[in-house]
Amino acid sequence: MTTTLQFSKGQGTGNDFVLFADPDGEVDLDPVTIRALTDRRFGVGGDGVIRAVATRAMPGGAVEYVGADHGTEWFMDYHNADGSPAEMCGNGVRVFARFLTERGLVTLAEGEALRIGTRAGVRVVERSPDGFRVDLGAWRLEDGEPTVRARELHAARPGLPLSVGNPHVVVALASDDELDALDLTYVPVLDPAPVDGANVEFVVPSDPLVVDGVGRIRMRVHERGSGETLSCGTGAAAAALATRHWAGSAAPSSWLVEVPGGVVGVTMVPGDDGEHVTLSGPAELVFSGALGL
Amino acid sequence: MTTTLQFSKGQGTGNDFVLFADPDGEVDLDPVTIRALTDRRFGVGGDGVIRAVATRAMPGGAVEYVGADHGTEWFMDYHNADGSPAEMCGNGVRVFARFLTERGLVTLAEGEALRIGTRAGVRVVERSPDGFRVDLGAWRLEDGEPTVRARELHAARPGLPLSVGNPHVVVALASDDELDALDLTYVPVLDPAPVDGANVEFVVPSDPLVVDGVGRIRMRVHERGSGETLSCGTGAAAAALATRHWAGSAAPSSWLVEVPGGVVGVTMVPGDDGEHVTLSGPAELVFSGALGL
Repeated sequence: MTTTLQFSKGQGTGNDFVLFADPDGEVDLDPVTIRALTDRRFGVGGDGVIRAVATRAMPGGAVEYVGADHGTEWFMDYHNADGSPAEMCGNGVRVFARFLTERGLVTLAEGEALRIGTRAGVRVVERSPDGFRVDLGAWRLEDGEPTVRARELHAARPGLPLSVGNPHVVVALASDDELDALDLTYVPVLDPAPVDGANVEFVVPSDPLVVDGVGRIRMRVHERGSGETLSCGTGAAAAALATRHWAGSAAPSSWLVEVPGGVVGVTMVPGDDGEHVTLSGPAELVFSGALGL
Repeated sequence: MTTTLQFSKGQGTGNDFVLFADPDGEVDLDPVTIRALTDRRFGVGGDGVIRAVATRAMPGGAVEYVGADHGTEWFMDYHNADGSPAEMCGNGVRVFARFLTERGLVTLAEGEALRIGTRAGVRVVERSPDGFRVDLGAWRLEDGEPTVRARELHAARPGLPLSVGNPHVVVALASDDELDALDLTYVPVLDPAPVDGANVEFVVPSDPLVVDGVGRIRMRVHERGSGETLSCGTGAAAAALATRHWAGSAAPSSWLVEVPGGVVGVTMVPGDDGEHVTLSGPAELVFSGALGL
């Protein structure tokens, strides 16, 4: 029997998603269906599929991910375009918040925080002047100093490894010309290569670096398994964290990061388990649709 | 004021389109709107936008394109993804027929012909076992024998120029390996270069070439202005016509052409103004949607 899937298409700085509500967890979201939905010519198209499931309706109430006292109503069941489940997506969870509020699934007043269940734990989202902001949690510098080679970059450069829940290596470039010339259709080569791979961010500071107390950088990113993308939320956070690290103690804790798909804001804030990093930026629903499954 | 656009997304062998009905020609389809709609991350995504307008509601009744005695109810107002209007699209007009019939705008019985107005004149579409078939009109061989060079092709090859309403150059390759190795992210170089450019088709015959009276070939295509695409209707027709030309007088007039996005059928049929070529294949609506303009 054909069932009709009511969905929304949303995007945040060009990261795009197929979203739908399945409060009671009744839709069987197998990899074949996900790949059909995310195909940009034969399906709807997207970087991932996000299913809104009531946390209590997830298998085992999702306590393995969010614990017992999670205080969340909705769980973000996120899958990559290839059908694999993913822990979290910085732009995805912001678009998810837009979906929940715009479709009337939650009511979120100005200044109020929304707790969302994810496979990486509870994430807290709130409205921001540019859209929605998410607390990505604690970050940390990693050991080592891998060198990075990339096509059209004429020598190996030192990279700064750090974790924002997922692994990143950030490389500072000297100029916009150098950034624009990069050919990221080729995978950047890390030496030594991290066991699980890493997203690689190439960053250029603006001149001046800080305007009105806010740091400004440009970034392009190569995501492991996906290639170059228009935006990567955790990558933007990693790029701002690395630039602050290089800039020294006088550097600000608020940053604007220009990515190919737009501009996101990154802010470092105190947290119970070390310093946290937050990501803000546009999160829009583009259209609503219906499709036979 | 925001108006809501009700649309359908359709595809034929991976050529994909945003379609909507505007019987009275009231929607202002400017290039900015078209580019926003066809953007694959910030919009709906597609190779083009097709507006269904009553022919009588087109400026001047569209007589400049289809004449006075056109006998058409609907006009296919086709625009490329970049916003420019286009005369015709072989896969687009087949998907347009699916849209008109499935949305109840026309009733088309088995074996009945549907006359559609286009900027290239009237096109006749009918149902086929594999979807919809369109008569692309008269074709012709062009003068000259340009050579073609392409990345990963280790010598220049002779190309056969022909017109199927638009210009094509077809190149025969020796093997599937040679076809698969081609890097069509680089524009093939034609010498001499046609003034208006040309789509370039690379073709490999199947072994045996003819099975049950039907010729079989594989093809990849580089479309001028678009790069490699999953399918090109007129390109598939050109590829079959060139292969029949090379195969000689015993070659069949029915062909199956395997393109990266699927399989289309090409048949040569007698016409009033010389031999015509028809294109058949799948034409599907993928989903329906609504979006604020």
